Formats: sequence, structure tokens, C-alpha cells
Amino acid sequence: MSVKINPIVAALPDTVPFVAPEEVERARGTAFQARLGANEGNFGAAPAAVEAMARAAQDDVWKYCDPTAFHLREALAEPLGIPLDALVCGPGIDGLLGLIVRIFSEPGDRIVSSLGAYPTFNYHVHAYGRQLVTVPYRTYHEDLEALAAKASDVGASMIYVSNPDNPMGTWWDGDAIAAFVEAVDPNILIILDEAYGETAPAGTLPPIDLDRRNLIRLRTFSKAYGLAGLRVGYAFGAPALIGLFNRVRDHFGVNIMAQVAARAALSSSDWLAQTVQQIADGREAIAAIAQSNGLEPIASATNFVTIDCGGDKGHAERLVAGLAERQIFVRKPMAPGLDHCIRVSVGRPEEIDLLAAQLPHLL
Amino acid sequence: MSVKINPIVAALPDTVPFVAPEEVERARGTAFQARLGANEGNFGAAPAAVEAMARAAQDDVWKYCDPTAFHLREALAEPLGIPLDALVCGPGIDGLLGLIVRIFSEPGDRIVSSLGAYPTFNYHVHAYGRQLVTVPYRTYHEDLEALAAKASDVGASMIYVSNPDNPMGTWWDGDAIAAFVEAVDPNILIILDEAYGETAPAGTLPPIDLDRRNLIRLRTFSKAYGLAGLRVGYAFGAPALIGLFNRVRDHFGVNIMAQVAARAALSSSDWLAQTVQQIADGREAIAAIAQSNGLEPIASATNFVTIDCGGDKGHAERLVAGLAERQIFVRKPMAPGLDHCIRVSVGRPEEIDLLAAQLPHLL
Repeated sequence: MSVKINPIVAALPDTVPFVAPEEVERARGTAFQARLGANEGNFGAAPAAVEAMARAAQDDVWKYCDPTAFHLREALAEPLGIPLDALVCGPGIDGLLGLIVRIFSEPGDRIVSSLGAYPTFNYHVHAYGRQLVTVPYRTYHEDLEALAAKASDVGASMIYVSNPDNPMGTWWDGDAIAAFVEAVDPNILIILDEAYGETAPAGTLPPIDLDRRNLIRLRTFSKAYGLAGLRVGYAFGAPALIGLFNRVRDHFGVNIMAQVAARAALSSSDWLAQTVQQIADGREAIAAIAQSNGLEPIASATNFVTIDCGGDKGHAERLVAGLAERQIFVRKPMAPGLDHCIRVSVGRPEEIDLLAAQLPHLL
Repeated sequence: MSVKINPIVAALPDTVPFVAPEEVERARGTAFQARLGANEGNFGAAPAAVEAMARAAQDDVWKYCDPTAFHLREALAEPLGIPLDALVCGPGIDGLLGLIVRIFSEPGDRIVSSLGAYPTFNYHVHAYGRQLVTVPYRTYHEDLEALAAKASDVGASMIYVSNPDNPMGTWWDGDAIAAFVEAVDPNILIILDEAYGETAPAGTLPPIDLDRRNLIRLRTFSKAYGLAGLRVGYAFGAPALIGLFNRVRDHFGVNIMAQVAARAALSSSDWLAQTVQQIADGREAIAAIAQSNGLEPIASATNFVTIDCGGDKGHAERLVAGLAERQIFVRKPMAPGLDHCIRVSVGRPEEIDLLAAQLPHLL
């Protein structure tokens, strides 16, 4: 005698998408000195956002947040030149990805992603009882043609693509993405994750086309904006797609701190430009450290640099473990073809200096 | 030609559980002077929580939050005398309710609640394609015997009960709840929502029994603790049940502000005691206003007072609308048998004074 467990959930393994650095720190009994593993915004949040949070903590936090995130959506939609009903906010891209899987597919459906792409997307695919179908990377880039072809071949309900890409940092220009969108069967939903859009070269993000009825684009305040801890991202696309989120989403899911801080961050354009420059400088510094150690940095449009370490998977794993022993937190790609690399997030200069000082001891 | 929409979602109406006061204010073009409609913590958050948030905004908000909410769970589990794996944090009770429906039932399942109980629970039941089966209130209380019997009769997978109750404010003592738990078929999951537990008389919350394999209890920081805007609640029960949340939940879903503020609030026991007293005083003040206007307050163990207005549904609706025109936000129960009542949350003294001044003009 026991309660019912949904059979999809009963069949799932006890895994999590990521082990957090805090958990590693607790297990090791010592704190990391350089936090370079989660592609966060190590330069912190915009001062205006910090002020807005402190004010809201004092005055507003006792109120339920606006379930429509009206003012934030207005501030986001206006510069994008899209109507309010083409944009929905959610608790980070992670939360939005779960909703997309739930809304736009059924148990047993096939869903296509690159082999080694975002683990949290895969987690949601499995957690909703869908089948993940993967396509290998090609020279460290997502293989757009192969993704489109595979999705048609297997009758997939959706394709996940991130541009710029995580975990490799590579990117396609907007024309290539637009051509991919054009090539995909219009019955197949394209999820275009642009979490790293702010740090990419001009021309990386394709023009917005709300008439495209099979495309949802995702952005976040967790990366360049330095607000990962607040959980705020947004999705935009044809209103007929976006409206469906309101039928199932947790309406109070974007908390009040997230709403006020994201609005303040959006109005901090000078701060953003300066931060994006710091991130670009950090990428160069990490690439130089890799090269001076005989490793090969992969060109990146993100807030991290993935480094081809030249050996095998075991070599890269030993580097990650060795850096952890030296109080430096980094992660690495996990899939065959990518797993000889390590991934180093842009940190503050003192964090990158620590990497420069310690890496030679491991090689 | 168009993308697949999950048939459960395609069949849903475009409704939301609540229209927010902010939306009413935007539509009316004027702000409420008394916010007495959402059972919030109008006295604000504990000073230690406000300080913790300001500090985290400056120092930590750029980091992803701890996906295990380790320190918060530790601070919660210890005084409850339960192990860490018996407790999971989530983005408010709302978020946890969605997960419970998802994990412990299947499409088409019957789920039992009281007619007129928490709309957001009903929203999740429908949004996951389950069937809601309702049992009427009896003299403004949830009818525990009838709920247990109905659940067995219809072969329900779960029963939702809130104690103290929303929207009526009534409660059963812990012995009655324990007898109800004992009476329910052990194959049927009991969701016991204790959102208003902190404001209830001693003895309202039954003893904890983790051997009970069909009971999940829910609590929140949104009410007495004054942190509704942050979205933080928790569920506890047998580890075999609680562990399943980790297979499907959004692991970073409890944001960093929520985690630090909730911990600070937990350590503010003097502040909590004082706030609970202010809430009790506010209940008395609202009850006195009702009585002096010839209306009948219903005894409440929560941070609101539901008032039997003596007329019909239309009368109560006119009162809610009339108060809104006088810048006072209140809500009302919606179901037959309850819908002649209005529900007034405890606010700050100046908000309650405004109610006292304006209500007589409407009667």
C-alpha cells in the first residue's frame, strides 16, 4: 500500500543537472578562491540594481510580486520593438525550458539537441518523459544542418540550439542562424537559447521575426547582467506561442527582487557596456594563460573560454580536480569529442591571476 | 502546418488563478491606499532579513544560488526535529503544489479539494490534466470526514486540505487533523497546507510523523514572515516522498534572496512573536469593524478575517467593488455557500483605519 507515483517520475534516476560549488566546498571543508566554473557575472550587479534590491527589501518584499511582470516586460519589449504579448518572463531560462518542454511536446516525443549541450535542458526532457536525440558537435560548433536534418528524420517536436554556445563558447553569425531557422520544418519548434547574447559580436543575434510560428528565443539576466542568483529570464516569439505559457506557468514565479533588479539593470547601459568590455578582456587573459601553458583556447563569444587540453578525457578531469585542490572552481564539457576540454569562466582579475599562477603546476 | 501543442495545454482556458492588485491599479489608474486583499505580511520583513538581502544584493547576487538550499534546510529541519532529506524548499507553496500534482498523479486522475479552496491548487490540477473533485465546506470549515470519504469513493490520488483554512480563516485542532490523516486511505496522498501555521493557536499543527507515508506538509515565508515577494516555501514528510521532488524540480528555483532572507527571518524569533501579536490585534480590529457595521466576522486563525456579509453573492461583490473605489483592496470567496462573504487581510493600523472609515458608506 502506498501513494501513486507518476510512472515517468518513478522511472527517473536520482541525478541533478549540476553539482553546485557550494556542495563541493562543504564536502572539501574549504572555500574556493576563484569561482570560474558556472559562467556567472563575477563583476557583480549594476549599482542601480543593487540599490533597487536594497530598497525593495525595505519597502516591498512583503508584497506578492506582479504575476504579469508588467513593468519588466515593458522595459524588455520596447527596445526589442515587440508587443507585450510576445514576451514572457520566467524564473531563469532553466524554468522557461521546463515550461517549453511541457507545453510543446508529449511523453515519448523525440527532442533534438547537440551531444554535450546544456544539461538542464536534457534534465527537463527526461523529467517530462520525452526522448532526447543528439547530434555531435562539428569542430566545436553546433552542427546546424545536421540538427535540422536529424529533427526531420526522427519526427522531433523540437530542437534546442544555443547561440553563442555553452559549453564550447562558439557561435554562428545571425545569417547562419536565420538560414537554419528557415531550413527547419515549420512543424518543429526551435528553441534558440541566447543566454550569452550580450557578450557576442554584433551580428550574432538574428533579426526578430514574430511571424515565425516555430521559434522561441530565450535570454537571461544571469550572465552579463550579473543576476544569476535572482532567477530571471525571458522568452519571446509569436504571441500565439508565448500566450500558452500563461496557461500553465507559476504566475508568481518571477520574484519581486528579480523584477526590480532586472529593470534597474536594463537602464544601466553604460555599466553593461563596461562589463561586456571587462568580460572580453577576461576572455583574452584566459586565452593567453592557456597558450602560455601550451593549451589551445577556443574562440569564444561568451563569458567563458573553453580550452582544448590536447590529451584525453582523463587528462582534462585531472586538471579540473587539480585546480579544485588549488581552490579554483572550473567545469568541463562531458560528452565524447568535447570531454578533453576544460571550461573557464571569466572572473575578476585576481581570480584569473590565481589561475595563471596555479595552472603551470598541473602540466 | 504548426508546432505541436501538448493536448492538455491546448484544451486549457486562458485563465489565471488571481488578478493582481497591480493590474487593477493599472486599469483604474490609481493606487490602492489599503492593501488588504492578498493575505500578505503588511508589517514588512524582519530587520535581520532586510539587512541580509541588502548584503546579498551587494556581494552574492551574481552567484547561482545553492540548488540544495542547504543552510536554509538545515535551519528549518533542526527545530522541526527531522532529517535534512525529509524537507525540500521550493519557490513558494504555489511552486511546490505544482510539483506535487506532477509527481504524485497522472493525467485523468481525480484529486479532491474543498469547493472554494485555494484557486492556485485547482489551477495546477487542471494545468496537468487532472480532474478536480470538490466537497462543500460545512459551517465555514473544511469537512474533513467528507473529504476523506469522497477521495475513497472516487479513487482519488490525493486530497488537498489547508489548516488553518484559506479563504475562510477557520481551523481544526491538531487532534482533528491527526484523526483525519489516520482515516484517509493510505494509498491517497494528503497535502496539508499550513501556510498560516504561525498565526494559529497552539495545538493547531499536529505532531510530525515521518512514518506516515501519505502525508506532505507545506509551509511558507509569505505570511507571518512577510516575504511573499521572494517566493520561498517548504515541504516536509517521509524522505521517500520528499526525495522525488529532486528528480523533477527546477534545481536553482529558490533564489538567493529567498534563501538568505528566510534564514535571517528564522533567527528573528522575537520579531516573529511581536508580528504574530500584531496580526492577532489586527484580526480583532477587523472583527470589531465588521460587528459595528452589523456584519458577522468568522473566527480566524490566519492573517485575515472573512466576514459574513449577510446578503447574497451580489451584495458581497458590490462591497468589494465599492471598497476598491475607495482605494481599499480586498478579495472574497468565490464558491456557492461562501460567496456572500468578503475576506479582509490584516494590514497596518492606518490601513485598517481606512477600512473603518469607508465601510459604513457602503452599507
